[in-house]
Amino acid sequence: MAGLKGKDILHGNQFSRKDIEGIMKVASAFEKEGKGALNVLKGKILATLFFEPSTRTRLSFEAAMQRLGGGVISLGSLESSSVAKGESLTDTAQTVAQYADVIVLRHPRQGSAKEAADAVSVPVINAGDGAGQHPTQALLDMYTIRKELGSLKNLKVCLAGDLKYGRTVHALAEVLSLFGARLYFVSPSMLRMPEEITAGLRSRGIEVTETEDLLQAASLSDLIYMTRIQKERFSDQGEYERVKGSYVINNRFLSQLKKEITLMHPLPRVDEIHPEVDGYAGSAYFRQMRNGVFIRMALLAMIFGKR
Amino acid sequence: MAGLKGKDILHGNQFSRKDIEGIMKVASAFEKEGKGALNVLKGKILATLFFEPSTRTRLSFEAAMQRLGGGVISLGSLESSSVAKGESLTDTAQTVAQYADVIVLRHPRQGSAKEAADAVSVPVINAGDGAGQHPTQALLDMYTIRKELGSLKNLKVCLAGDLKYGRTVHALAEVLSLFGARLYFVSPSMLRMPEEITAGLRSRGIEVTETEDLLQAASLSDLIYMTRIQKERFSDQGEYERVKGSYVINNRFLSQLKKEITLMHPLPRVDEIHPEVDGYAGSAYFRQMRNGVFIRMALLAMIFGKR
Amino acid sequence: MAGLKGKDILHGNQFSRKDIEGIMKVASAFEKEGKGALNVLKGKILATLFFEPSTRTRLSFEAAMQRLGGGVISLGSLESSSVAKGESLTDTAQTVAQYADVIVLRHPRQGSAKEAADAVSVPVINAGDGAGQHPTQALLDMYTIRKELGSLKNLKVCLAGDLKYGRTVHALAEVLSLFGARLYFVSPSMLRMPEEITAGLRSRGIEVTETEDLLQAASLSDLIYMTRIQKERFSDQGEYERVKGSYVINNRFLSQLKKEITLMHPLPRVDEIHPEVDGYAGSAYFRQMRNGVFIRMALLAMIFGKR
Repeated sequence: MAGLKGKDILHGNQFSRKDIEGIMKVASAFEKEGKGALNVLKGKILATLFFEPSTRTRLSFEAAMQRLGGGVISLGSLESSSVAKGESLTDTAQTVAQYADVIVLRHPRQGSAKEAADAVSVPVINAGDGAGQHPTQALLDMYTIRKELGSLKNLKVCLAGDLKYGRTVHALAEVLSLFGARLYFVSPSMLRMPEEITAGLRSRGIEVTETEDLLQAASLSDLIYMTRIQKERFSDQGEYERVKGSYVINNRFLSQLKKEITLMHPLPRVDEIHPEVDGYAGSAYFRQMRNGVFIRMALLAMIFGKR
Repeated sequence: MAGLKGKDILHGNQFSRKDIEGIMKVASAFEKEGKGALNVLKGKILATLFFEPSTRTRLSFEAAMQRLGGGVISLGSLESSSVAKGESLTDTAQTVAQYADVIVLRHPRQGSAKEAADAVSVPVINAGDGAGQHPTQALLDMYTIRKELGSLKNLKVCLAGDLKYGRTVHALAEVLSLFGARLYFVSPSMLRMPEEITAGLRSRGIEVTETEDLLQAASLSDLIYMTRIQKERFSDQGEYERVKGSYVINNRFLSQLKKEITLMHPLPRVDEIHPEVDGYAGSAYFRQMRNGVFIRMALLAMIFGKR
Repeated sequence: MAGLKGKDILHGNQFSRKDIEGIMKVASAFEKEGKGALNVLKGKILATLFFEPSTRTRLSFEAAMQRLGGGVISLGSLESSSVAKGESLTDTAQTVAQYADVIVLRHPRQGSAKEAADAVSVPVINAGDGAGQHPTQALLDMYTIRKELGSLKNLKVCLAGDLKYGRTVHALAEVLSLFGARLYFVSPSMLRMPEEITAGLRSRGIEVTETEDLLQAASLSDLIYMTRIQKERFSDQGEYERVKGSYVINNRFLSQLKKEITLMHPLPRVDEIHPEVDGYAGSAYFRQMRNGVFIRMALLAMIFGKR
């Protein structure tokens, strides 16, 4: 896949099934070879421009770049807020593109990553543009699933929690569908997966079940991908408490399942996965974080034509 | 010019015409050789101490240091404000000088860079001390002018916008005068170039014209160096709007000029250069940002006696 | 002392006298050999997680890691406050442990470093946990004392200022006692050394004198370790001013001593050491900062089994 050289990474849709397999192969090689990565991007500079906080995504990219031997410059959070006031995003991006060889951008406005990418001559990686995309998250999720379950083909996957606003689960559902999944969407009715996504999946032959019953869906699945339900989505606090309480994975929940299952979560979590299950063999959410570094190492190396 | 080894960079006046030519020669070599820079400052640490925000200057120095193989430590903006409260500048500088091999300082108080430099044993680079100096900006401006116009000698240059408070144009006028320029100062009357600068230039035989008419001055010049007019300088908002509107470079302005001209700006801009001219061949302001990295690489390498 | 490989550094008590001597030997070698350190930790990543500001400790660790050829990722101060709200410390630490090979943690809650260390698989270095420990500070203090006074054995040391709340002086008193010191504790009565520390020292045969008279104690000592008295400890501002005024080291104080003495301070200082004595040969407080880098280089190298 020399095809990534010099390219932007803006949208999950830009990757075919074959592309995804190629990226995962490079990530896997980096994971195994360890020190072989040390000088791959020596002398290159990555700039992180985060116009809203995202500690784990920023740190993950910065670790990936440095593990490849490259350097990092970062717009601080205070600075990005002041920059945001006085200067257009494209001017900031065009300036930073004079200092850095690749830009990682998070910005609250949907479409902002594309806008920045169109303005500059260096590759831009979208690390979240509001309700839009966060393509490297979907890739690291897929990489984790393959490692945990051994394959990506025809999996039974339960996506649970806030399916309405969750950028992560939207992208994951789309990408999973490339590999022929059986999907269970578990959420309270007010936080259901957007109709256009569900309809799109079904039109491509993916069987989807929507339900409020986590236990039942989980008992039919290989994997639960859990997400946080945010208090601020609810006007009625009693309703929030009731809903939140119904989506909690703890030891009791796992014992009711009567089989092994893989647990993933984009983190941070609040109450939806109890820390008492952190030691459970299927709890993959911290390993998922680690996989993000390998996926980002792969993407960075490929963007520079080094893999 | 071994003369920079171990030296502070505090004031534009410290450089002779020959010094400036020497620094530009090193910058030009770094720009051409690319990977040859990789290990020049390996194991050295640069500290950025920014007591007021200056994203582009900070990022430019941090990129320059890392492109030379060195490391960077940075006082964050929140920290610098808390440090500023409890500890004297010289104590902070003396502490950081124990960790780093060179300090880049921005501080709102004029004279602060000299004060810090006198207190510490490592070189200090002034990255702006209030109404004082910002010598690396003048050097990158000169480097850009030479690249864009082919020479620094006897240029016809129009400095426009806020000439009263603009540290950048003060320094640039001084340095240009070393090479025998013909200068046009274009500003509203309340934002004229300080009399002592204009008088000093004239006493050294530099021909200076002051005017409010940008189009006429530009039609006699090789280069317009545009600066931002800040709203807060005006008590009368109507006056601000009128003035601001009279200094806008856009396609219409360029078509009235009837000749090629080079456009520079220290950025960030507000309205004074319209984005529609970004693609114009003479629009050099983003290239100017990139040149800042090469100039700072040159200065850092020379300070450590490596060029 | 291969014994540090893979270990956490949480508490001053974890080090025996022999351990401390081993660490100082490695620090001393790094101080001498200079460039020999350049690739020791190449490809390794250190994460700084500072949930309260501590500019000098953070910068010192970041410089140490980069002088060893490693990379650094840092949770910004704004981010750490937002992380602190929404996510448990152990979740944040477990996430960062997926990106980094070692974590340096400062957190306002006593016991937090141990808690994080228990949760993660990479080594954790405690850089201050509230009223608890800050073990690398005690080590750099001992390293400085040995360099300044030539030995650590049977020294006469005056600890002065706020002995009640000062984590630094608590740890230093404990560690000094391993080498058989004669200790003078100088403070206003309301800021005396906690009884359990004094009693513990005496039970191990250390002779301790408590006094309010700095000049007299200093005249019997080889070293004054001065600390800041914080205004917010006093309800009566008149009392604060009186106390503060009685603990000031200036030229007049030194002339009354009638002998050479070594001056140390963890910095930042307010008024307790006047800048006029910065040039005094015994003023070791800025050298103390520098020694922190060497001690931290030693600890990091040893944790990775590289020394």
